[in-house]
Amino acid sequence: MKIRVAIFGYGNLGKGIECAIRQNEDMELVGVFTRRAPETVKTLTGVPVYAESELVGKKDEIDVLMLCGGSATDLPKQTAEYAKYFNVVDSFDTHAKIPEHFEKVNASAAEAGKIAMISVGWDPGMFSLNRLYANCILRDGADYTFWGKGVSQGHSDAIRRIPGVKNAKQYTVPVESAVAAVRNCANPVLSTRQKHTRECFVVPETGADLAAIETAIKTMPNYFADYDTTVHFITEEELERDHAGIPHGGMVIRTGKTGINGENNHVIEYKLTLDSNPEFTACVLTAYARAAYRMNREGQKGCKTVFDVAPAYLSPLSGEELRAHLL
Amino acid sequence: MKIRVAIFGYGNLGKGIECAIRQNEDMELVGVFTRRAPETVKTLTGVPVYAESELVGKKDEIDVLMLCGGSATDLPKQTAEYAKYFNVVDSFDTHAKIPEHFEKVNASAAEAGKIAMISVGWDPGMFSLNRLYANCILRDGADYTFWGKGVSQGHSDAIRRIPGVKNAKQYTVPVESAVAAVRNCANPVLSTRQKHTRECFVVPETGADLAAIETAIKTMPNYFADYDTTVHFITEEELERDHAGIPHGGMVIRTGKTGINGENNHVIEYKLTLDSNPEFTACVLTAYARAAYRMNREGQKGCKTVFDVAPAYLSPLSGEELRAHLL
Repeated sequence: MKIRVAIFGYGNLGKGIECAIRQNEDMELVGVFTRRAPETVKTLTGVPVYAESELVGKKDEIDVLMLCGGSATDLPKQTAEYAKYFNVVDSFDTHAKIPEHFEKVNASAAEAGKIAMISVGWDPGMFSLNRLYANCILRDGADYTFWGKGVSQGHSDAIRRIPGVKNAKQYTVPVESAVAAVRNCANPVLSTRQKHTRECFVVPETGADLAAIETAIKTMPNYFADYDTTVHFITEEELERDHAGIPHGGMVIRTGKTGINGENNHVIEYKLTLDSNPEFTACVLTAYARAAYRMNREGQKGCKTVFDVAPAYLSPLSGEELRAHLL
Repeated sequence: MKIRVAIFGYGNLGKGIECAIRQNEDMELVGVFTRRAPETVKTLTGVPVYAESELVGKKDEIDVLMLCGGSATDLPKQTAEYAKYFNVVDSFDTHAKIPEHFEKVNASAAEAGKIAMISVGWDPGMFSLNRLYANCILRDGADYTFWGKGVSQGHSDAIRRIPGVKNAKQYTVPVESAVAAVRNCANPVLSTRQKHTRECFVVPETGADLAAIETAIKTMPNYFADYDTTVHFITEEELERDHAGIPHGGMVIRTGKTGINGENNHVIEYKLTLDSNPEFTACVLTAYARAAYRMNREGQKGCKTVFDVAPAYLSPLSGEELRAHLL
């Protein structure tokens, strides 16, 4: 009896989950649900596509619903709503609003007797876990998170909204000397500018004012003004050829001291290097779907984050197998 | 009301726990128990020292007992025995015997209604956790563990047993080209020799046959014969000056593929760089002592490993605080 999973929202993340489920033999994908007209959506693996309106009616055929919408407007409504009918997993990533999201979803899931696993992915998600573990181990220390080298969709979109820009891709790049200082236990205090640089590849419209575009990017508040930013103008063909992927990654590093006089230094580093940000995120959500299903079968309910999930729930292996082979 | 912790066995690990507890405000160290004559043991912080025979009599004054003996002969007896009276934490690290240790300790702890947290540390421990998480996320991939650069006590001891050797220290060193190939997603199949080298610093007795010592080291089965080994002869003063510490560390790396055709590669790397192996191990045990105490207060019992502990149990912070600050 496989875990029956459904996807709601068929963008990059939903496609990633469709692929990830094929790598998990104890799971099967029973359908993709969409707000678009179902007949206009073609899945990668041929799994059936349904309208959102059919979702609740299929609640007895679905063990876990993967919510693949955006954090800005979709998930704040969808997660609490669908936790009334399903065990759900989302990737809500607006860090500042997680407590509010948690409370709302928890009320809904607890009442329904379902598990709602929120803010799953790599940041929040695996990076959060590593911050937590490292903080609990090295009590007297400092935390650092670096992102990249990787594509920031938000920053790429911001550039595309500048007049005269046809297309663009922005990479966030950690400053190597800053990373080196952290690894060296120098405990540097790093400004925004000292931690990351921003590298932009911009396809201008024909006849556009390149200097004006470059200035508009480099002075854009919040997005670029606080960073050392490099702008490269390239052709659409070059963008297609050299910048088609959506790689990302980064590092969570904690350094800390131990010993009777704090004489010993330690470094804990967790590093991700990802060819595809959404496909990796999808793999994390899929593992937590298994946990949601199993925890709910044991009678647990309510909203959970990665902090609340004993690692063994993520694995298809038994406790005996895990102890024999992975411990 | 602080968590009252006691230490049994006052070697490097016990001393590390004594230091670690001072970094955890919700814990207090109530005593060190020893098989030696208590009056011959002087603690770093002045905490009282008691004979082993007094341990069970103090069971109502101790919330968690940290078992700091060795895996060869101490823990196989002590953990199951003391789990009858206390929540216990051990660092049992004989990987092949963990299943057997688990069964024995589980019977004892379950009957007593206590939590026994076994095989805590960094390998087994944090490395195991990272193997598990990475395996659950990247289902189609390969695992690599590298140790070092760091001191292997077992290999240092083996050298010291060779006739003509006065003192010695052995470092295990990962082969950089192998690590690079792994990070590059080349999925190399690596022999023992290709993964690590062994570097030995040896203080010979006056007049010893250096060539004979070097041959004895390099041809020693299990310990050195399967590795490229370097031997340096140095003076006792040089050993004291340059090799007094017990640093260690290493990496757990999993690489894997995602995408409809496995077209995207990903690397998950967890890396530790430790000035003091026993002090870091002690910090991990101390965090899991908190978890043992809290899980037992909730009514849980039996033998647990790091796989069975939801990360939130490790932290003194509440769920609300964790979600607000670390997620």
